[in-house]
Amino acid sequence: MPRFRDTDLSLSPSVPRKERVKDPKNIMRSVDPAALEMLAKYKDQGIITGFDRYAAQQPQCAFGYEGVCCRICIQGPCRVKGTEGPGSKGICGAHGYTIVARNIARLAAGGASAHSDHGREIVYALLHTAKGELADYSVKDEKKLRRVAANIGISAEGKSVNELAEEVALAALNDFGNITSEPCRWLTSYITEGRKKKFDDCNIYPTSIDRAVVGMLHETHMGVDADPVNIVFNALRVSLADFTGMHISTDISDILFGTPEPCVSEANLGVMKADKVNIIVHGHNPLLSQTVVDVANEMEEEAKAAGAAGIQISGICCTGNEVLMRSGIPIATNFSSQELAIMTGACDLMVVDVQCIMPSIRAVAECFNTTIVTTMANSKIPGSHHVAFDEDHAVASAKEIIRLAIDTFKERKGKEVFIPQHKNKVVAGFSFESMMEIFGGLNAEVPMQALIDEIEAGRLKGVAMFCGCNNLESIHDQNHLTIVGNMLKNDVFVIATGCSAQAMAKAGYMDPAKVDEFCGENLAAFIHKLEEANKDKLSAGLPPAFHMGSCVDNSRCHDFIRVMADTMGVDTPKIPFVATAPEAMSEKAISIGSGLVTNGIPTHVGTMPPVEGSPLVYDIVCRIASDVYGGYLILETDPEKASEKLLAALEYRTWKLGVHKAVAERYESALTKNY
Amino acid sequence: MPRFRDTDLSLSPSVPRKERVKDPKNIMRSVDPAALEMLAKYKDQGIITGFDRYAAQQPQCAFGYEGVCCRICIQGPCRVKGTEGPGSKGICGAHGYTIVARNIARLAAGGASAHSDHGREIVYALLHTAKGELADYSVKDEKKLRRVAANIGISAEGKSVNELAEEVALAALNDFGNITSEPCRWLTSYITEGRKKKFDDCNIYPTSIDRAVVGMLHETHMGVDADPVNIVFNALRVSLADFTGMHISTDISDILFGTPEPCVSEANLGVMKADKVNIIVHGHNPLLSQTVVDVANEMEEEAKAAGAAGIQISGICCTGNEVLMRSGIPIATNFSSQELAIMTGACDLMVVDVQCIMPSIRAVAECFNTTIVTTMANSKIPGSHHVAFDEDHAVASAKEIIRLAIDTFKERKGKEVFIPQHKNKVVAGFSFESMMEIFGGLNAEVPMQALIDEIEAGRLKGVAMFCGCNNLESIHDQNHLTIVGNMLKNDVFVIATGCSAQAMAKAGYMDPAKVDEFCGENLAAFIHKLEEANKDKLSAGLPPAFHMGSCVDNSRCHDFIRVMADTMGVDTPKIPFVATAPEAMSEKAISIGSGLVTNGIPTHVGTMPPVEGSPLVYDIVCRIASDVYGGYLILETDPEKASEKLLAALEYRTWKLGVHKAVAERYESALTKNY
Repeated sequence: MPRFRDTDLSLSPSVPRKERVKDPKNIMRSVDPAALEMLAKYKDQGIITGFDRYAAQQPQCAFGYEGVCCRICIQGPCRVKGTEGPGSKGICGAHGYTIVARNIARLAAGGASAHSDHGREIVYALLHTAKGELADYSVKDEKKLRRVAANIGISAEGKSVNELAEEVALAALNDFGNITSEPCRWLTSYITEGRKKKFDDCNIYPTSIDRAVVGMLHETHMGVDADPVNIVFNALRVSLADFTGMHISTDISDILFGTPEPCVSEANLGVMKADKVNIIVHGHNPLLSQTVVDVANEMEEEAKAAGAAGIQISGICCTGNEVLMRSGIPIATNFSSQELAIMTGACDLMVVDVQCIMPSIRAVAECFNTTIVTTMANSKIPGSHHVAFDEDHAVASAKEIIRLAIDTFKERKGKEVFIPQHKNKVVAGFSFESMMEIFGGLNAEVPMQALIDEIEAGRLKGVAMFCGCNNLESIHDQNHLTIVGNMLKNDVFVIATGCSAQAMAKAGYMDPAKVDEFCGENLAAFIHKLEEANKDKLSAGLPPAFHMGSCVDNSRCHDFIRVMADTMGVDTPKIPFVATAPEAMSEKAISIGSGLVTNGIPTHVGTMPPVEGSPLVYDIVCRIASDVYGGYLILETDPEKASEKLLAALEYRTWKLGVHKAVAERYESALTKNY
Repeated sequence: MPRFRDTDLSLSPSVPRKERVKDPKNIMRSVDPAALEMLAKYKDQGIITGFDRYAAQQPQCAFGYEGVCCRICIQGPCRVKGTEGPGSKGICGAHGYTIVARNIARLAAGGASAHSDHGREIVYALLHTAKGELADYSVKDEKKLRRVAANIGISAEGKSVNELAEEVALAALNDFGNITSEPCRWLTSYITEGRKKKFDDCNIYPTSIDRAVVGMLHETHMGVDADPVNIVFNALRVSLADFTGMHISTDISDILFGTPEPCVSEANLGVMKADKVNIIVHGHNPLLSQTVVDVANEMEEEAKAAGAAGIQISGICCTGNEVLMRSGIPIATNFSSQELAIMTGACDLMVVDVQCIMPSIRAVAECFNTTIVTTMANSKIPGSHHVAFDEDHAVASAKEIIRLAIDTFKERKGKEVFIPQHKNKVVAGFSFESMMEIFGGLNAEVPMQALIDEIEAGRLKGVAMFCGCNNLESIHDQNHLTIVGNMLKNDVFVIATGCSAQAMAKAGYMDPAKVDEFCGENLAAFIHKLEEANKDKLSAGLPPAFHMGSCVDNSRCHDFIRVMADTMGVDTPKIPFVATAPEAMSEKAISIGSGLVTNGIPTHVGTMPPVEGSPLVYDIVCRIASDVYGGYLILETDPEKASEKLLAALEYRTWKLGVHKAVAERYESALTKNY
């Protein structure tokens, strides 16, 4: 039995740690032409961006980078020095593997907290809306509400929309605070039967999202768990809590704001308009940004009265993705280049909510005519403007913010504006429901079969899911674009979320006109076949890569995985599906990645999480996880090598399909028959 | 208005950072004679202990030590280098103050998680006991059950003991998972009216323990809160969640195992018996350790059959305190010297549950005839023996463990045993209820008034609460003993918990015979007056310092604070009460300390938490907190200086009492009148 899926390839990253650290001043910082133009324009003018700060942090502490620095109690910091003697352990005696495992588990806990707390906010908004307490929101997508209710086992019979919405909201809240031994309902409702058995057997079901996180902090507290296998595998419980929180976020957002459908827009800094009031929404939570978008139309006249040609809203990070998916709002840029949007001089106001907001935007804004507005009680930036966002008066808050933008615009006169004229057309809005409707054009009864047929016939190699984040350790967007290019060329069907989707959008990978340029013949043919089958329904063509939403919308990709497995009649470890976080950066990436592994998916991470300090932990996440869950991490910082490894992982799964199926089954052992 | 309570003293620690780092090889490692004897015996024999590992970690990373190393996303590690330029911020642009605030807030979240998850375990045990599902437990203290029910507003009328216990358990669980906007019930039930108003005004009520923790992880996630004031003050919500979890732990433990009453025992390594089967219980949770204690008697014959003179159980850390308080089990030692107990060669078995267990005990045990037994699913040590503790069969688990100890004892024959013959008599068992009963001997109607009378008359200077932990950064036990010595000498009434109480116990500070030696005249007179008034009830005299229990039992001290304030008719910031964690080490110390500050108490920390990297955060916790909550931190590593600062803080509060009361009130401003 091959011990690792990509048998020809090494478990280790191809670039050793020492060679990975280049002099960041001498390398290209981005492959995004708009970003490069902006960086060139302001070179040596004293404006500090993340690109400069990354350079200034080099060389980074190797102990921290490899995960063998412990600051969990205040005897520390302790660093694992060598392999023997008193300095090889923490002061408490913690081995390097314990320290690495604790650190990575806590990263997952942070990620699950961020995702799910975001979901919780939205659930409360639905609850209060259903109770009639929030005038500015309503259940926009009753069908989705009914679908969600049915999925989680709530009968809609005889219930008004608001009654049903309240019940769904309370069920979601119960997944946060449940005190019984029942597993989270949202989790069990959206996984395969095979996974249910697996999670039960392995005793990693979270009974509540919050408890899973708190339990993991306890387990990784000083003097509790010293066993790295136990810690890492228990951290998977947190990743399933993350899954639960993400799915709740997506479902309830769809109920409140509508399930996305294909829409046309644009991406990259060129979407900003010099003569308009430019508002950028940045962060993750659609509660405010969607209201800003909804209200902006009404304010057009006010903007014009101030001398502007109108209001231009664009987005950064996942709040940008949320309003792109539902309202076709263009993407200004993604994480690493967020400061550059301000440096256009045309950004009158940037309104932020939570997550992935560089605190530095305020310092950069000081050099330009930009108002930074924070809105959330748990997310402030000293010195910036704070408009306390109040769900009770969402529209009023949104108007206040837009008026601030108009006021700022008035002061822009005479100041330099420099908008790099790069942008690409984007077709986005592919919720799972939309995807299935599109596949349904080829197979109305079993939509997913349309894709599976292509794979089983050997025309497509499988599916690759791209997850978000930029990481300034990488050349901005390069990993995303290199890997997606390789996937498409090799006839892999691509779905994407978060900053990864934005990297693709900016570079044209979501422009239907580029299908023949970017995709292999078979993939292009499949996409065209889908276009043809849906031509009455689609207002635009279909893109090379499919944008499935924000980072909580990785839940949509999980639905894809589940339905693919169910349709194929196997569990998730057998489906030809891989995931990649080419430029993973945040704790959310750690929890998403772990969740994918737990769900049986080979998952590439293109920036190094702090696990290299322990060969044991490295081996657990890259190999042993696979023996238990069928999923595993592929840690590879070189995007070309990563592409090879991803293709190998797909090949390993596809060779058992189609003509090889009977042979494969004959030679399967007891251990491998599941995976 | 004095900006700081101890006006004559500097806000800064008296020993600058650079001088604080001594060559640990050349300094005394402990003031505990048993520990010193043991260290001397095994000097240069290759057995590595925490004392050696601390030395090997020197010099520690200054970035981490001062809190300006960030590893919250995987772009890092980032270190704040200097005060300007791109290297002065994290890659994301986070300022040093943001990084320091996030790190310290996450420490508090870890502490609250550990405390409250411990509480949750016990609550589930009560719930299942009440439902008749656990044969080996019962409600041992019905009176306490009724008191707790009454305190949290549950009527006992017409309910059986088990019905009431179930209701109380469910109410406790609701404090973990509540989804409404109501604050935690256990919190509001055990604080003053003044604090209720304060927490409401400041919007820091936790609505659920778990949510508070998860919310704080979200707030400190990459790109969320950049405002250190906001982060630090929101972290106080977590400290109140910690308070809630601690109080639940104490209350439910008392219900299941009995509320402690004064008992006589001994402390230090000398309690171990060479001719007996020595079992050491170590960790925090009484669920298993109390059962081991209860069952040991039945097993005496088995031990004798194996050639032993019997079974000797002793304790380390708070599981040791739990069984000391309730069953008079002697203390072997405290945190820093836990490995030394194994090095006696007489420790046949050490059974551990959770928290503060050095993973190194297993490596040390390899050199001696000791079996290490882990028992909890979330707390394992590679290579050690694991007996999965099963509440359903607690007695069977306990017997299995004791049998293992007897088996190990059999193999001890002929091996060297070296037990340093140091121990002291201890009178412990001072639950809050016991304290009030003892004070009641002087004033039956308003017991706390007995103490207040002494303070108002100027005979006692106030109350000092000593909280747990050892930290190998300090000379073992020295801070505890120096400060308690100074407090007692200066007529300060002392209550203590955790490893602090154990340091005192080992050194004789809990031996009634030492009252006249250690205490100032007035304090000694008061203690003797209490002894006299309770002579019919007490089987032994009263000690210089009062042992109130384990670290979750800081809740008992909080009850002391509340009742003192209520009795004086003021809020907590006005009572002459100080707290100190002389050798703070764990995350729990951070959450306990923050909780005391939030509750209006000047709180000394004798080891440096990682806040020196940000003068702003340093100032928030040491000064600004005081303006808002009346409590503040005193960060001082020199125990003599710390004693001065604590006495000054008491003096600041007491000068307004007694003869100065009228004058003080006349000159109070609007701002100072509360504090």
